[in-house]
Amino acid sequence: MEQPDLDTSVLDARLAAAKEASYRLARATTAEKDAALERIASDLRARASEVIAANGLDLQAGRAAEIGRGLLDRLALDEPRIDALADAVLDVIGLTDPVGETLTGRTLPSGVRIDQVRVPLGVVGAIYEARPNVTIDIAVLALKSGNAVVLRGGSAAEQTNRVLVDVLRGALDAVGLPAEAVQTVDDFGRAGARHLMQARGYVDVLIPRGSAGLIRAVVDEARVPVIETGAGVVHMFLDASAPEHWAIELVHNAKVQRPSVCNALETLLVHQEAAERLLPSVLDRLTDAGVTIHADERVRAIRPDALPVTDEDFATEHMSLDLSVAVVDSLDDALEHIRRFSTKHTESIVTNDLANAERFLNEVDSAAVMVNASTRFTDGAEFGFGAEVGISTQKLHARGPMGLPELTSTKWIVRGAGHVRA
Amino acid sequence: MEQPDLDTSVLDARLAAAKEASYRLARATTAEKDAALERIASDLRARASEVIAANGLDLQAGRAAEIGRGLLDRLALDEPRIDALADAVLDVIGLTDPVGETLTGRTLPSGVRIDQVRVPLGVVGAIYEARPNVTIDIAVLALKSGNAVVLRGGSAAEQTNRVLVDVLRGALDAVGLPAEAVQTVDDFGRAGARHLMQARGYVDVLIPRGSAGLIRAVVDEARVPVIETGAGVVHMFLDASAPEHWAIELVHNAKVQRPSVCNALETLLVHQEAAERLLPSVLDRLTDAGVTIHADERVRAIRPDALPVTDEDFATEHMSLDLSVAVVDSLDDALEHIRRFSTKHTESIVTNDLANAERFLNEVDSAAVMVNASTRFTDGAEFGFGAEVGISTQKLHARGPMGLPELTSTKWIVRGAGHVRA
Repeated sequence: MEQPDLDTSVLDARLAAAKEASYRLARATTAEKDAALERIASDLRARASEVIAANGLDLQAGRAAEIGRGLLDRLALDEPRIDALADAVLDVIGLTDPVGETLTGRTLPSGVRIDQVRVPLGVVGAIYEARPNVTIDIAVLALKSGNAVVLRGGSAAEQTNRVLVDVLRGALDAVGLPAEAVQTVDDFGRAGARHLMQARGYVDVLIPRGSAGLIRAVVDEARVPVIETGAGVVHMFLDASAPEHWAIELVHNAKVQRPSVCNALETLLVHQEAAERLLPSVLDRLTDAGVTIHADERVRAIRPDALPVTDEDFATEHMSLDLSVAVVDSLDDALEHIRRFSTKHTESIVTNDLANAERFLNEVDSAAVMVNASTRFTDGAEFGFGAEVGISTQKLHARGPMGLPELTSTKWIVRGAGHVRA
Repeated sequence: MEQPDLDTSVLDARLAAAKEASYRLARATTAEKDAALERIASDLRARASEVIAANGLDLQAGRAAEIGRGLLDRLALDEPRIDALADAVLDVIGLTDPVGETLTGRTLPSGVRIDQVRVPLGVVGAIYEARPNVTIDIAVLALKSGNAVVLRGGSAAEQTNRVLVDVLRGALDAVGLPAEAVQTVDDFGRAGARHLMQARGYVDVLIPRGSAGLIRAVVDEARVPVIETGAGVVHMFLDASAPEHWAIELVHNAKVQRPSVCNALETLLVHQEAAERLLPSVLDRLTDAGVTIHADERVRAIRPDALPVTDEDFATEHMSLDLSVAVVDSLDDALEHIRRFSTKHTESIVTNDLANAERFLNEVDSAAVMVNASTRFTDGAEFGFGAEVGISTQKLHARGPMGLPELTSTKWIVRGAGHVRA
């Protein structure tokens, strides 16, 4: 699988250095880690012009490669964005350090004492695409929770990331923590990414952040544990009893407030008994906001100018002002549709029927299930986590918005006085 | 990868049936699930002769294939063993149902209420080797925690497992739960196992139980989330200050009490300052119990009749009365040895030095880290979990002995009253 001329010994040396540094980070005090974060924030500001110059090279290459306006916008860093990034680093200082927390403990009948305590995962790998702010975000969250990181940003951000990694390593070194706790494999391109995905024994968890395609590729190729983040084909169901003003506001907020993110609405399902009552005003509010409606036949009977919707639309996370809309016969049909097309991120029911609300909450198998609330609430900051590593759509280890505790594992501390097992 | 004549549609139908059944299981009340377990226990006893007859066929085939005495013993079921198995099923009834437990909850500043509640994982896959009791064990634990299971036992136990799966499915059906919640892929041999490992979207977690080779193969081939259980290259370190009577009893208990299990001692490290004081009595007690000592040069200076030890010994889980023994210069050297050879299962220090005890507890990166206790304590029953799914040696989701809560995920329940995000 490796390219013939790839010198894996360099990559292995970096991974081994990250592992070694992770042992030191695991023992670092909260004060030491916070000092590093403070230094990262101040160095980011101090070296802003250097970051912006490197970013300029990436932007230039991106424009030449015609990567598109959306990507260019995510890639771009200027003084205000760097300032905001530094502020976000300082915010992490205020978060509770999860390491060392005792989750449970008891004295066994034999007198042996056991305690389950939080420990860092060790080495966190991150694979993401052309968003240099992720470089700082993920490294800072990993460091605060006592982990080393190995980063693979998109090649489109390579020059920017090079400077940012240098800032991170310099700050660690300045406060007496090992610079080796931050590593990059960007200079090895895709071969570096593949090596990272297969680095069993070195990488304790790998977090892909980005498109569905990226995440799928990582899941397919990885031999290390992965936390899948992401894709949100998010549904809202307007039940027969849905109050009209809630329906209008909730659908509008879920779809329009920030359409490019994973908790934004992609599909609206409407109970047949409510379709004529609700759809005109709900859809008017959306089209006024510039939303393109992709609708099934029953919706188009009410709104003939809507585009026809396909199964492909139902399965797509548009991340744009496009919305699929369908009428369903019943709550059961809504649940069935959701089961078929949902990516298990967030779904919401709008209803005034208690039994239906409870059924929806119980039976929808998603990270966040809501009643009468906008799907935009599925978010680490909204949930009060202070920062967000990503939103897990898998069921193992972490589900939904991930904060610092999700970057830890546990270990059992067992204390005896010569106790043997009978 | 699939054999050309493999009819994957049958396998896919079973996986889909398990998934469908998992939705029903997820909503089953504790009373319904306990009724199923009670029926499983009574049907096991009622059909004991049928189980034993099928087991006889497996044993006959095993003897013909010369699979070895140890494997034959693990494979064999007789009336007392079936009785014990049924009793173990009844024990699970007494365990707390983890489903529905609220882990945390708060009201957000906006007034939106969020609660994190335990939900079943969904479909649990299990791949294991020729131990028919695992068929019952894992299915019962999965069912109690609201999950469906897809089982792949070793082909050496195929006849026995066929009857046991029939018992499980019959019991579910008898109490009004879907028989489809228990599926087997045994009749598809290795191709069935491979299909199970790659069943993304159907299997929420795959648990391999068995040899290091089996676990490695699953990790390599799986495209679904895996929890690694197992292999234990377990260390005990006798520090300079280790009290002699503790050293003798702890080493003996850890090595001899049950040498064939994963928490049994494999390597004994002794501080150089304690070697002459402790090794004669510690090793005498072991050789009296029939233990074969594989020792480094410094140990052999004290015990010339010991076999020489190799790095391969240090890396091997013998699961027999063999013990690797080495003298180290310091606690640092002991930590270094453990870092190199440990499978991160369990390690223990015997010491009277508080600072060294704390360093060992903090710096050893294993699922269970002990001071002055036998490594045999790393066990679900000893920890008070009542039953054990396995012992996780990975850091994600579960670490150390896994009980029922480790077979669950969580979801966020969000309740608003028309709340939109500002």
